Parts: sequence; structure tokens; C-alpha cells
Amino acid sequence: MIQIYILDIIGTLVFAISGALTAAEKRMDLMGIGIIAFVTALGGGTLRDILIGAHPVGWMQNIHYLIVVALGVVITFAFSNQLVPLRRTFFLFDAIGLGVFAIGGLEKALQYDIAPVYAIICGMISATMGGLIRDVLCNEVPLILRQEIYATAGFIGASFYLLFGHFNLMPELNLVLTISLVVTIRILAVRFKLGLPRIKKL
Amino acid sequence: MIQIYILDIIGTLVFAISGALTAAEKRMDLMGIGIIAFVTALGGGTLRDILIGAHPVGWMQNIHYLIVVALGVVITFAFSNQLVPLRRTFFLFDAIGLGVFAIGGLEKALQYDIAPVYAIICGMISATMGGLIRDVLCNEVPLILRQEIYATAGFIGASFYLLFGHFNLMPELNLVLTISLVVTIRILAVRFKLGLPRIKKL
Amino acid sequence: MIQIYILDIIGTLVFAISGALTAAEKRMDLMGIGIIAFVTALGGGTLRDILIGAHPVGWMQNIHYLIVVALGVVITFAFSNQLVPLRRTFFLFDAIGLGVFAIGGLEKALQYDIAPVYAIICGMISATMGGLIRDVLCNEVPLILRQEIYATAGFIGASFYLLFGHFNLMPELNLVLTISLVVTIRILAVRFKLGLPRIKKL
Repeated sequence: MIQIYILDIIGTLVFAISGALTAAEKRMDLMGIGIIAFVTALGGGTLRDILIGAHPVGWMQNIHYLIVVALGVVITFAFSNQLVPLRRTFFLFDAIGLGVFAIGGLEKALQYDIAPVYAIICGMISATMGGLIRDVLCNEVPLILRQEIYATAGFIGASFYLLFGHFNLMPELNLVLTISLVVTIRILAVRFKLGLPRIKKL
Repeated sequence: MIQIYILDIIGTLVFAISGALTAAEKRMDLMGIGIIAFVTALGGGTLRDILIGAHPVGWMQNIHYLIVVALGVVITFAFSNQLVPLRRTFFLFDAIGLGVFAIGGLEKALQYDIAPVYAIICGMISATMGGLIRDVLCNEVPLILRQEIYATAGFIGASFYLLFGHFNLMPELNLVLTISLVVTIRILAVRFKLGLPRIKKL
Repeated sequence: MIQIYILDIIGTLVFAISGALTAAEKRMDLMGIGIIAFVTALGGGTLRDILIGAHPVGWMQNIHYLIVVALGVVITFAFSNQLVPLRRTFFLFDAIGLGVFAIGGLEKALQYDIAPVYAIICGMISATMGGLIRDVLCNEVPLILRQEIYATAGFIGASFYLLFGHFNLMPELNLVLTISLVVTIRILAVRFKLGLPRIKKL
């Protein structure tokens, strides 16, 4: 679907810029920034491909991904000061990227005959593991493990996309609906400081 | 072998609970606890499957693994306070899990025509890399790299299982013997504070 | 090419010793030192093999790699005090290892029909990701992300090797030239404290 492809490119760009900004804050050099941008944008999909046995991995089959990551690095270098005040816009695009990657990851897993329950997890992995690897490389406890409903939003998005698909909902409409759902969950989670339960004390 | 399967399930449950407890101590939320439980229990076997080219990876082929991990998370949430005093029982089950995963990992590698010396390493990877990834995600230097005879016990267990198998020892007896060996090594290592040599100073 | 093979073994040995020394500084025990030596020397090639779908991964197909890593650990234990003053010699061998792994990684990717642009990245991954995983396991922000022209030197080496190959340069001469190039870049980078651009402040 051309719509998924376009959203996929947008998601990749946003994730690459988010990775590049994190790396820049850690005082990394150009290569470090490039590697972190790459890993943030493409790491989740790469892990999914490795798990389902799709090789060579996705970014080796379409040069657009490398170009978009490089573009993200260039944008970060050129406009680093202007990017920081745009956090709100970024938050929106990041939520869209989360939804798109979750759905795209689900679709790819289904193409490789992965059973639905695992395919949903593959969607969540595609959407969140890039950010997790970024945080590990920056020597932080990954954000998605600690706060806000993030991986959960990806999980829900992929699940509903699959569910609606079973009811023969038009793919384009399904895409719009489920991505809107992911974005809504993210906005509500951040605005109302919603979180998942924790264990009180140990 | 049905015995391996039952022990494998027990090992998965214990490793999942151990991961969930570690994550809870790090103040992670439900999703973080779930991800760490998952990774601790299934990460080692997943890495083994990736290295030997078994795809899709094991946990995508039998729903029991996901269910057992989920069960481990539920148990941790429900009984977190009661679990901590059970450290001794846990230590025992963890040692059994170590032995079972090492032997199960060896067996699977052999099924994929991996030569014995590498299959033993695959056993050790299955048994220890989940805990290693857990520690990396929790931003700690992995425990198994620093202290106590742990990975070494898995290595010895897998080696002896292979050796006894060559002498046509009955598989069930072999399993009991080598797992007992692993558990014994672990108990002795902890009780007498045995450790491997280090380099004095650098 | 026998020359690549010999250099590959030298590179593996140097990387294993470098990993073992880092682990020893972190007060790890023998098994920890062995695992870090293994990961530093073979982790990059293993990741490359996983990405391109070459399985079982390389070190499972030739026992020499395990033997050389073990040899590196033994050397580190036996001569740890003598090794530290040899930093300069090490630096040289490390630079040679960087070049060899980058070229060897490129060659293996090309054998698996990976397109040239990705094969160059595979070369860089082979040469640098072992050190990156080592740093992650030692709970450090990976060195290659922060300073000195390192991954970049591997990237340039692999690129020129491919370029010269297109002009039908004799493989042996190509190898000597491009490895000399990598070593020269590394020496210049360290001597003149050359670095890649960073983002000033955020």
C-alpha cells in the first residue's frame, strides 16, 4: 500500500532525527550521530526481520531507508537549534511513526506466515526496539521500560489493525483509524500522565 | 523428551519471575516488567536460534512460552512481597533452569547439525544470555561476567550431557545426572564463595 | 585469499586481547574475560552474518576462531603486566585488524549477493560492532560513537577496496594499499587529535 510506504518513510525520518538529537545531547561525533540515527530508525525493523528469518534485512533491499536516515542526520546538523522548540510537532510525528511501524511490522510478519499473536509482537518490536537500542547505546535504562504508555500503544494499534482487518475493513480506512488510535493513546497518556501499574515496593 | 519439556517450562517460569523482580526493583511499569521477564526467559534461546539459523525463533512456534512468561509476570505482581523471602527456593529453581536451558540449547543446536563444540556454546548461550540482556537493559554490568560460577556451570552441564550421551547413557538418567551436577556446582560456588581466577591488577 | 586469512587471524587475536584487557580492568573473572574477548573479536562478524542471513554464523564453521580467542585470553592472563606498556604496538595491530575486518566483512557480504553500498556497511559493522558490544557489556557509552575517527576509517577502507577492485587492481596490492590507508587514517587521527564534526550545543 502506497500510504503505508509514505508513512513508513515519514516514521523513519522522524525516528532518525530523534536518534540524532539524543546522540548530539550525548556529545557524540558525526559518525556516532549517524549510527544512533540509523539504529533508532531501522533497529526495530531489523530485529523483527532477524526474528522471522527475513534476510537480508529490510534496509538492505531499498536504498530509500539509508537516504532518509542520512537526510535526518543532515537536518539535525543544519537545524539543531530550531528543532528543539518543535518538540510538540515531533511528539505528534513520533506517535504516527509508532503506529506506522507497528502496523508495517505486523504486515511483514504476516507475509512471512507468522501466526497473528506473534505478528502483533513483531509489530511492537518494529516500533519500539530501535528506541530501546538507542537508549542502551547511550547508556540509559530504556525509556519505554519505565514510563508512559508507549510500547503498549504500539501493541494496541497492531492488535486493532489485525482485528479490523478480520472484519474486512478497507485497508486505507483501517490504517487511518488505528494510527489515530495510537496517536490518541499517546496524547492522552502524556497529557494526563497515565501510566501502567507498577509494583509498589519490594 | 517430555521431561525436558516440563523442566523447560519450569525454567522459563523461574527466569521470567527473576526478570520481573529485577525490573520491579528498577521501578519499571507493567510493560517494562513484561519485556524484561520475556527477555530474561526467552532471550538466550532466541539468540541461539538466530546464531544457528532456526527461524522463526522458538517462542514463535509454541504459545506455551508466551503464556508462561505472562504467568510469571502475574505471579510477580500478585505475590511480590511473598517472593522475596523465597530467595533460597528461587536459587534452586534458577540452578535447575540453568541446567535445563543449557541441555535444551545443546540439543536444539545438534538437531540443526551444529558441531558438538559449538553446540555446547549454544547451550551456554541459551542458559545465560537472557540474564545478560536483562542486566544490559537494566543498565548494569551483567552479573554473569563478574562473579560466581554461573555460565561455567552451564558450560560444564552441557559438556557432560554430551559426553554421557556418547557413552549411550539413558537420556532420562543423563538429564537427572547433569542437572544435578549443575545444581551442585551452583550450590558449592555460592556456599564456599568459589570463583574463577581474575587478573590481579592492571 | 591466504593473505586475508592470516590477517583475519591476527585481527581476531588483537581484538580478543583488547577485549580481555578491558574486561580485566572491569574486575571480571575468567569466564567474563573470555566472553568479552569472544564478543570483541567475533561479535562484529557475527552481527554481519545475522544481517545477511549467513548461518550458522562464521565462528561455528572454523574452529580456528575459538582457538585464537582462547589464545588471546591465555596471553592476557600470562602477560597482563607486560601488555600495558605495549599500547603503541597494540594500537598498530588494532588499526590493521580494523582494516582487515572491514575488507573481510565487505568480501563476505558480496559473496552473499549483497549490493555494494550495503556490503561496505557490512564491512564497517564487522570491524566495529564487536568493540561496541564490548563497551555496552562493560556499561560504557561505546568509544566509537564518541571520539576519534574509527568506524569512519573502516568505512573508508572498505569503500576504497571496493573501488580499486572495480579498476581490476590486483587483490594483494589492493589489500596492502587499503589497509595502509586505514592505518594511516588512524595514526593521523590520534596524533593530530582529528575528529568528526559535532553539534555545538543543544
